[in-house]
Amino acid sequence: AIDGRALWNDIIETARFGGTPKGGVRRLTLTGEDRQVRDWFVATTTALGCSVHHDSMGNQFARLPGTDDSLPPITIGSHLDTQPTGGKFDGIIGVLGGIAVLRALRESGHSTRHPIEIINWTNEEGSRFAPAMLSSGVFAGVFTEAEAMAKTDRDGVRFGDALDAIGYRGEEMCGQHPTSAYFELHIEQGPILEAEDKTIGIVTGVQGMRWYEATITGRDSHAGTTPMPMRADALLVAAQIIIAVNEVALAHAPDGLGTVGLVENRPNSRNVVPGEVFLTLEFRHPDDTVLDAMEADFRTRLEALCADAPVTVDWARTWDSPAVHFDPACVEAVRQAAESFGYPAREIVSGAGHDAAYMAKITPTAMIFVPCAGGLSHNEEESATEADIAAGANVLLRAVLATDAR
Amino acid sequence: AIDGRALWNDIIETARFGGTPKGGVRRLTLTGEDRQVRDWFVATTTALGCSVHHDSMGNQFARLPGTDDSLPPITIGSHLDTQPTGGKFDGIIGVLGGIAVLRALRESGHSTRHPIEIINWTNEEGSRFAPAMLSSGVFAGVFTEAEAMAKTDRDGVRFGDALDAIGYRGEEMCGQHPTSAYFELHIEQGPILEAEDKTIGIVTGVQGMRWYEATITGRDSHAGTTPMPMRADALLVAAQIIIAVNEVALAHAPDGLGTVGLVENRPNSRNVVPGEVFLTLEFRHPDDTVLDAMEADFRTRLEALCADAPVTVDWARTWDSPAVHFDPACVEAVRQAAESFGYPAREIVSGAGHDAAYMAKITPTAMIFVPCAGGLSHNEEESATEADIAAGANVLLRAVLATDAR
Ligand SMILES: NC(=O)NCCC(=O)O
Ligand SMILES: NC(=O)NCCC(=O)O
Repeated sequence: AIDGRALWNDIIETARFGGTPKGGVRRLTLTGEDRQVRDWFVATTTALGCSVHHDSMGNQFARLPGTDDSLPPITIGSHLDTQPTGGKFDGIIGVLGGIAVLRALRESGHSTRHPIEIINWTNEEGSRFAPAMLSSGVFAGVFTEAEAMAKTDRDGVRFGDALDAIGYRGEEMCGQHPTSAYFELHIEQGPILEAEDKTIGIVTGVQGMRWYEATITGRDSHAGTTPMPMRADALLVAAQIIIAVNEVALAHAPDGLGTVGLVENRPNSRNVVPGEVFLTLEFRHPDDTVLDAMEADFRTRLEALCADAPVTVDWARTWDSPAVHFDPACVEAVRQAAESFGYPAREIVSGAGHDAAYMAKITPTAMIFVPCAGGLSHNEEESATEADIAAGANVLLRAVLATDAR
Repeated sequence: AIDGRALWNDIIETARFGGTPKGGVRRLTLTGEDRQVRDWFVATTTALGCSVHHDSMGNQFARLPGTDDSLPPITIGSHLDTQPTGGKFDGIIGVLGGIAVLRALRESGHSTRHPIEIINWTNEEGSRFAPAMLSSGVFAGVFTEAEAMAKTDRDGVRFGDALDAIGYRGEEMCGQHPTSAYFELHIEQGPILEAEDKTIGIVTGVQGMRWYEATITGRDSHAGTTPMPMRADALLVAAQIIIAVNEVALAHAPDGLGTVGLVENRPNSRNVVPGEVFLTLEFRHPDDTVLDAMEADFRTRLEALCADAPVTVDWARTWDSPAVHFDPACVEAVRQAAESFGYPAREIVSGAGHDAAYMAKITPTAMIFVPCAGGLSHNEEESATEADIAAGANVLLRAVLATDAR
């Protein structure tokens, strides 16, 4: 069984890398803090008897040999990068839960038939470099490595340069790596498990999500001398877009979600009518056809508001991650593992994207959720209990062993 | 008479300090670029026979002695700082027009009775440090030097530290400086003179303006997992505020103006429901009682939208610059100077704030406007003609001479 205390200690230890005064973590991908936690991953898994390497996208792999080492590994993973104001658990428990599995195997003396590999995926959050799940996406063939390398953050730094800067570009070409299954443990990041007093979410899939970028171009002008009818106020139109995104989501209640997360206002001076705004928006829904309808609804609203506005709006969909359905056998392994421990459990669809969504394209995949307080995530106050996380890691361990035995 | 070509050359020369690829100027106050143009001011006015010094707020004074040097100087000034995406003319022609007056006096061999002083005021724009006209405000006793020194920019740098960093904190205590009159030449920054084919605006005063800051506090949360009814989206409320500010201005048409110029969204990540937004807003109107009504109207709208919103909004008025009426004798000197040259002229109220608004509190003051293309200002494409600027400087010269002769 999992040593829940050791797992919790790992969580507290890694939270130092980028730890914030409010108890959260700011560890954007491919920064110095990310390098620190990667170094920790190498040291920790090496000490547990793993061989460790990273691929050309910086994805890290810690491998414990199997008794039949020619079999493709059963993989367990998630990510160690965080949001700018992130928590200690999102992504992290999926990697550290995998390390807890290694520790349990080692302590019990049990050898698996398959090699077991723990993976730390680069840039899952999509906060510094869009889109999310970039490197599991390259691994799964959804993006080319060349397009990933050319992505830039909002300061214009290229992904490839940031990867080189922290010294984590590896020799193995990303994706040239066989797998026989993939499991990912994660906090739910939503309110359902807690509200229903469930310890385990048996994740059956991931909802669809689409990201967009928009640039609104008006004209900088003086706030004190430009009559209202002569203005081309890009921020005013941005405000109308923010409200339209919200309206589209509400029009597709209860499952439709719409968010404007990032806004850059230019020149951003108190007495200048803003001449340019860059913003991002996203829509999510478990049903891709409803996502189509939401996008069409937004387009109609945007066209209506642009018809009257003295600005131009350039917008484009920059990411489309359709709804994902996990492998029935892997989902069943999670269900039976939860049952075997007697943990209260329910099926659930993930609202957040996960590396598992891309891994599901190339290998049998499933996920395990545990509750987090108030469903709060992407927040420094994100919180989950030692007991729930240990329960999730126990389910992870048993699902992996069941898959190894199949 | 003014040497319009030399004045134009000075404009082109100073536009190098912080010049942008689009032909504008980015010379935020108390930056390296500001230091460069200040050094140029010292060198240029010294070469014209002035003694030059700066006071404790960094305001620069270039003095040409009078035949009765015990008289308080007639002062001419404006500012050499710009907006982040500013032009070559806003503020600048007021200082360089003063230098053109010095040059004309020198070349004609005419000696004035009063000393003549050209002033470059620190932080007129209010873009880096709010509010605008900060140092003429200290000079006029509207702000204390201590409160000005403690102002911080959006990166938290204190005004006093920035002033020390460029080496322009002087010995003379700001405001300990007698004056017998103040004249300021400026581009109109609005569309009226151009539309009516006038060369000179006889500025009778400045409209009222009020600045506010607001912080909207919601809760960071995951864009993919937080149901719409559970969100505390600070950016959505910011959008409603932006629209409300616009509505307040339109409700007080045609003279009411309302602008949100600066927005900071946090954490500003694509897949995080924003938990905090800081924004600035301002209202302007020539009539202070209408400004009162606009503020009350905004307060009512804000309260209504806050009543339904799961966020808190802290807001405060941070600056109040009531409507200003210039000195009748100085205004008359401007009118007669324009008439004596036969320039088409009209009276006008300034929409923008100017150092003259504060100088009017302590000394007889007037301003001269010249047209700018399309009324565009606070924009890199701001443009004005050599002929109009020379005309404005001629009016300045003659108004100063008339005042000297009184
Ligand atoms: N798990 C997680 O927060 N992933 C970020 C990708 C997303 O926006 O859903
Ligand atoms: N002249 C000028 O643009 N001053 C800036 C102060 C204002 O916002 O009006």
